Amino acid sequence: MTLPTPLTGVVPPVCTPLTPDREVDVPSLLGLVDHLLSGGVDALFVLGSSSEAAYLTDRRRRLVVETVVAHVSGRVPVLAGAIDMTTPRVLDHVAYAAEAGADAVVVTAPFYTRTHPAEIARHYRLVAERSPVPVLAYDIPVSVHTKLSPELVLELAAEGTLAGLKDSSGDLAAFRAVVTGAHADPRIAGFSVLTGSELVVDSALALGADGAVPGLANVDPEGYVRLDRLCRAGDWDAARAEQERLCALYGMTGVGDPARMGAGSSGLGAFKAALHLRGVIACPATAEPQVALSEAETERVGKYLAAAGLL
Amino acid sequence: MTLPTPLTGVVPPVCTPLTPDREVDVPSLLGLVDHLLSGGVDALFVLGSSSEAAYLTDRRRRLVVETVVAHVSGRVPVLAGAIDMTTPRVLDHVAYAAEAGADAVVVTAPFYTRTHPAEIARHYRLVAERSPVPVLAYDIPVSVHTKLSPELVLELAAEGTLAGLKDSSGDLAAFRAVVTGAHADPRIAGFSVLTGSELVVDSALALGADGAVPGLANVDPEGYVRLDRLCRAGDWDAARAEQERLCALYGMTGVGDPARMGAGSSGLGAFKAALHLRGVIACPATAEPQVALSEAETERVGKYLAAAGLL
Amino acid sequence: MTLPTPLTGVVPPVCTPLTPDREVDVPSLLGLVDHLLSGGVDALFVLGSSSEAAYLTDRRRRLVVETVVAHVSGRVPVLAGAIDMTTPRVLDHVAYAAEAGADAVVVTAPFYTRTHPAEIARHYRLVAERSPVPVLAYDIPVSVHTKLSPELVLELAAEGTLAGLKDSSGDLAAFRAVVTGAHADPRIAGFSVLTGSELVVDSALALGADGAVPGLANVDPEGYVRLDRLCRAGDWDAARAEQERLCALYGMTGVGDPARMGAGSSGLGAFKAALHLRGVIACPATAEPQVALSEAETERVGKYLAAAGLL
Amino acid sequence: MTLPTPLTGVVPPVCTPLTPDREVDVPSLLGLVDHLLSGGVDALFVLGSSSEAAYLTDRRRRLVVETVVAHVSGRVPVLAGAIDMTTPRVLDHVAYAAEAGADAVVVTAPFYTRTHPAEIARHYRLVAERSPVPVLAYDIPVSVHTKLSPELVLELAAEGTLAGLKDSSGDLAAFRAVVTGAHADPRIAGFSVLTGSELVVDSALALGADGAVPGLANVDPEGYVRLDRLCRAGDWDAARAEQERLCALYGMTGVGDPARMGAGSSGLGAFKAALHLRGVIACPATAEPQVALSEAETERVGKYLAAAGLL
Repeated sequence: MTLPTPLTGVVPPVCTPLTPDREVDVPSLLGLVDHLLSGGVDALFVLGSSSEAAYLTDRRRRLVVETVVAHVSGRVPVLAGAIDMTTPRVLDHVAYAAEAGADAVVVTAPFYTRTHPAEIARHYRLVAERSPVPVLAYDIPVSVHTKLSPELVLELAAEGTLAGLKDSSGDLAAFRAVVTGAHADPRIAGFSVLTGSELVVDSALALGADGAVPGLANVDPEGYVRLDRLCRAGDWDAARAEQERLCALYGMTGVGDPARMGAGSSGLGAFKAALHLRGVIACPATAEPQVALSEAETERVGKYLAAAGLL
Repeated sequence: MTLPTPLTGVVPPVCTPLTPDREVDVPSLLGLVDHLLSGGVDALFVLGSSSEAAYLTDRRRRLVVETVVAHVSGRVPVLAGAIDMTTPRVLDHVAYAAEAGADAVVVTAPFYTRTHPAEIARHYRLVAERSPVPVLAYDIPVSVHTKLSPELVLELAAEGTLAGLKDSSGDLAAFRAVVTGAHADPRIAGFSVLTGSELVVDSALALGADGAVPGLANVDPEGYVRLDRLCRAGDWDAARAEQERLCALYGMTGVGDPARMGAGSSGLGAFKAALHLRGVIACPATAEPQVALSEAETERVGKYLAAAGLL
Repeated sequence: MTLPTPLTGVVPPVCTPLTPDREVDVPSLLGLVDHLLSGGVDALFVLGSSSEAAYLTDRRRRLVVETVVAHVSGRVPVLAGAIDMTTPRVLDHVAYAAEAGADAVVVTAPFYTRTHPAEIARHYRLVAERSPVPVLAYDIPVSVHTKLSPELVLELAAEGTLAGLKDSSGDLAAFRAVVTGAHADPRIAGFSVLTGSELVVDSALALGADGAVPGLANVDPEGYVRLDRLCRAGDWDAARAEQERLCALYGMTGVGDPARMGAGSSGLGAFKAALHLRGVIACPATAEPQVALSEAETERVGKYLAAAGLL
Repeated sequence: MTLPTPLTGVVPPVCTPLTPDREVDVPSLLGLVDHLLSGGVDALFVLGSSSEAAYLTDRRRRLVVETVVAHVSGRVPVLAGAIDMTTPRVLDHVAYAAEAGADAVVVTAPFYTRTHPAEIARHYRLVAERSPVPVLAYDIPVSVHTKLSPELVLELAAEGTLAGLKDSSGDLAAFRAVVTGAHADPRIAGFSVLTGSELVVDSALALGADGAVPGLANVDPEGYVRLDRLCRAGDWDAARAEQERLCALYGMTGVGDPARMGAGSSGLGAFKAALHLRGVIACPATAEPQVALSEAETERVGKYLAAAGLL
């Protein structure tokens, strides 16, 4: 299908369920997609950071995108991350994602290498030239260690290189500059501005964002869909209450003991534990070398779910 | 062949010559290897940062390691970088490198993901368990955004997980802690401590390092071999003079205009321009999305070569 | 006067007008205070980052706080920054600010030193114990290079150490955690949560912030007061339009040529140029070693003012 | 006295002994100075980072410099740190230090503010113009969050703005660029290049540094003087052994529990505990808000002293 211009609403970055020996658990992945679609989400984003794309071999990445695209079968758009260090490696991921039928690819600035704005612009231009599907920029400085400036994003949007932005920078002021810049420029009509900051989705929508890509929507898709609809209806008080409920639920990402694991192991571990406790996926394993949650930490995830009425 | 314990001397990180359309230029790669071997180097390191590994697709990486290992044919050890974000992806690179006959693999801490020391330790243990060849740690915070602590390196060395360290951190005090820690612990006998800081090779060898992995040795292998031999002979005054000559030559890495490109484009561009000017490789192209040196910048590289007596 | 609990509304960080030889320009400072008060602001914050506190000698700092407190004479609360590296030095600033009659002091985490959360907590406890007036935390990682965690702020609030937070971190999700945490805990009633992010004041107020400390309010106090009142009235569409107008005006902070000066010189230079062009202060000089705006750059500030209807 | 050109040898950054209520302990300070002078050091550096200058009020800073200069009475040069955020504040410290008779001042780049290279250059030029005594640059990125580039240091040296560099950046390659650049330029004759990296003093001297400013020399001045003399004599093997002994002694800086305190509290706490255990100072207290070492941690300091033959 064609990517809507703009893409709006809730676009969960789909977790990648794994078997105990860390292969993609295809039945659970299908179950998770059904869970999200029945929750009312507007599109799916596979192979993003919450999907543990950084931990999946190329074979597993390809399996994920093929499985999801085939299963969704055009009911909603499917975006695929093409996460790698530089242009040539990204293009290899773009190729199989497009071949599998993804409706768009999501691409970060180069990383591992030291990168200059001119090189970032060149990167996006080369990827877009050679990609059969639209390209969205993925701004995630915590991983990539560069921030995409609003000026650069708007320039690449105006020239037709970029079809959208998925912003996980946490910098709402810069995000707003993209939103208002895009609205002000007729050449950028249809550009999709999506926030990846799951704790301020109401704020992002209030200032004009098109949609949200919240990792926590794996756990509670209905909640984020409700939040999106309340924002669109201008019912800001109810939206804020729903957002605060989701912020409380997000507390689960902090259950992991920081003496024993990093924030990634804790956060992705909590999402998967929650999906397992809710019966959506068969096994809560995260990819290596992440550290697993303990039994007590998993119990605390359950308490967050119960408090949110999700168990 | 078996990796020497320890590996000593000069181990250039071999540049990857490219054709104008950015395929691996195999004849130039063979020529470069011959140039390095005839310069007297003690081992080769392919697919490191100076090899533009971050820019090479898997197919090209595999071609590089197969080509070099076959050509070297056991004359010196060949180490191969297995540079990727996490354990499962690194293991895919380890597999083809070992299959091609590399004598050891060189592996960074996880990157892109947010990483905890416990996860880094787990990463190295999992990689070492499943690698058919010895594993060296590659400490390069400018790319990976974490520093390997001497304590962690020594712990992983003592338990047999790591066979060596390639240190590109620029932190000589921490490097020294690994060197003296390794010397003090009989369990760590044979551990290879190599510096990647091409401007202080004399300092590193003086404090007990086993060897050096200098990118600039692509351009002037004889110079680094001479430096290494002077240090081993304890002729510190001559060593310092040779190192200062090489530091002056290294000035070539700054020829690129910082308004137009990053330090990587400038530095790798200069190495390749120098190899081209010296007649070692057929084309100075760097991988995308790096920015090419201008004609004037390339001329300045030539002046550095001339000043060093290399043209 | 007693600090309101909570302090609400618009609290401009008052610029410090300087003479051409960089002494405090007292008549201009009085004029600026009148300009702000007649603009309807709810309190004043002297000796903050926008006040160039980092550039003022102790003598000048003392003169500023004495001048402003005396002139305001209780019409609105006056907060004073006590910006220095560590507890003992901060306490020296607290002493003269309190003596001058400031209603509260605003204090960052220690900087220059390497600091641990336990040391930050100890710092605030020691300052609060010895301060005659309430203490607000000033979270400004761009200057201090540590972020105050919501957990730490709420703990210090609950025990009575902190009376409020001025958040210039740009991290709205963490800011929200403080706002909702404060609302949820009866021990924290009256705690003032203020945003220093002038581009998302509407967002901050919508999620429950008590007020804003926008540097740009020096230039357009009426605009920020209008924005605050619209938010309080729940007129979010009009608030967004006003905020967007102010965001456009904020573009003035980018007039300085980045090849010639840093973001601070450009931003503070623009505020002062604007105040000078609007006739509020006599001289646009910024403190040393900041670089002055050129004539052309100053003209561009004028265009921003004109576009916003302020000239 | 006049600052030697260059200043050479061992220049300890003198710790500031405090009483239990955190006043400067003048008798202990005099005792420490005697201990250092009788250890054979070549100059003294008061009010540096190891002196806890960041924690001392102006009154205490002035007392320190007056006390030490008067007591030393010209036997060796006394350098004084003038550590503050910006030019005008630094100049206040320069004034009393020069008035007290310090032979030079040591000044960092601006901090807390966001700073551009042009502003850093302007800062040093303004300070040098108005300072009655020579100015050395203090490069300490861990505190200041900018690195002084060798190019900038050499430019400021060549024009006569800077009389020397105290490098605590840990970047030996950049340090070497200053050393060789200074040796190559006749305009920079007499410029003093000093390393602040106490673990690689032998390396720094081997590549041409003039001297060292090692915090650990408070604890073992004889050791550093011996190391310096061995290096000057070209006895590199003995120098390396002495340096390794001092590196082992430096292990004391890691005694503090990282769950309970930062690296600063641990390191400065260890130096002061060692001076107290050795009978040089009356009280091991560090300034607020640093966390004190526990009794067990202090015992471990004693073991380091004993192992080094210093108890």
